[in-house]
Amino acid sequence: MSTLPATERTRLGRLPDRGSFELTLIERILDEGLVCHVSWVHEGYPVTLPSAYVRVQDHVYLHGSVKNRTFAALAAGAPACLTVTLLDGLVLARSQFHHSANYRSVVLFGSCSPVTDVERKRAILAALCEHLVPGRSQASRAADDQELKATMLIGMPIREASAKCRSGPPLDAAEDLALEHWAGVLPVELGVGAPVADPALRAGSVLSPDVLRLYERGSWSLRR
Amino acid sequence: MSTLPATERTRLGRLPDRGSFELTLIERILDEGLVCHVSWVHEGYPVTLPSAYVRVQDHVYLHGSVKNRTFAALAAGAPACLTVTLLDGLVLARSQFHHSANYRSVVLFGSCSPVTDVERKRAILAALCEHLVPGRSQASRAADDQELKATMLIGMPIREASAKCRSGPPLDAAEDLALEHWAGVLPVELGVGAPVADPALRAGSVLSPDVLRLYERGSWSLRR
Repeated sequence: MSTLPATERTRLGRLPDRGSFELTLIERILDEGLVCHVSWVHEGYPVTLPSAYVRVQDHVYLHGSVKNRTFAALAAGAPACLTVTLLDGLVLARSQFHHSANYRSVVLFGSCSPVTDVERKRAILAALCEHLVPGRSQASRAADDQELKATMLIGMPIREASAKCRSGPPLDAAEDLALEHWAGVLPVELGVGAPVADPALRAGSVLSPDVLRLYERGSWSLRR
Repeated sequence: MSTLPATERTRLGRLPDRGSFELTLIERILDEGLVCHVSWVHEGYPVTLPSAYVRVQDHVYLHGSVKNRTFAALAAGAPACLTVTLLDGLVLARSQFHHSANYRSVVLFGSCSPVTDVERKRAILAALCEHLVPGRSQASRAADDQELKATMLIGMPIREASAKCRSGPPLDAAEDLALEHWAGVLPVELGVGAPVADPALRAGSVLSPDVLRLYERGSWSLRR
């Protein structure tokens, strides 16, 4: 199994047994998330913004407007940190001290570079579309040349990354097990609701059944 | 209505009509989220980690181990950025270019300071517990002196912050409205599943009905 090397940045200081450098785990978490938080440093302070993203092979890609200050800085190679967090549950222990969360997260360090090759850009934007909504790249109009020019696409290699996960029941101290308080996990997950059609929708337009695959994503399930 | 002053950092470069400095909106978003992403700068590069948090009055509080490198840096006043993102929907336009997301986010800049007063620390930790699971601070054992000492609690004032939100249907260009593709919004929300009791649960322990209030949180709803 492929693992990434631990570095000073990715080695976990706290609870190292929750960490992993296993590439397949890192990729699985990246493939399940919809939103990442990407950070860069501007005049000495950090700036952290949410962004859609997609993993394709050994890179994570982000897109934004060419007019976006953050994307301009990232495209220029500013040191960056990209974090994806999947919250899986609230862990209720008998003691408040041992309350916790079940989660899977990835922290990726590195720097981005722009994707300029037009065909590669098209392919990765289609993959981004597919990542967010399966089947959607075929069920919508692809970007034309002008739209493609107005879109900045940047990629960050998955070279320096680690995953951190917690799962399972609360871990109370032995002397607390006799307390009367309920203990256990409240599972939390992202769910997709019933589609809301655009009021301007053309008569006869139907949602691709591929979208239903969204409801099977990771721990997601059809909720309504 | 109270608004925060715009600063060079919080003024939105892109799509400023989606931004807001309204304090009640900022507070509502902070009060609905469970996880923030907090960043600081270590040797010139950003480090971004997920964390639980709670807003109490005009501060956001985070807690962690006194042994945690990130918390030590934050407590020492390192420039920080704290971001909370609520994903509300996937916006499917007829054109891939106009695909978007409905979301509400807050970006807060500043620096943290530790809460050292023991009674204040107790009160804020109880509030954190209540923020995550309503009623839970009464339905669990509060931290004892030793646990309190092992917990670092830091606060960041809500002084320099902005919210950014998108809602509503896709906004395709007029000439795309006649395309046959389905367009609309796939609502996305965090949901809570059926509680999973700790295998070591004492017979007779029951989950407080207050927890059900979780299911009424913001856009959340009971799903199973």
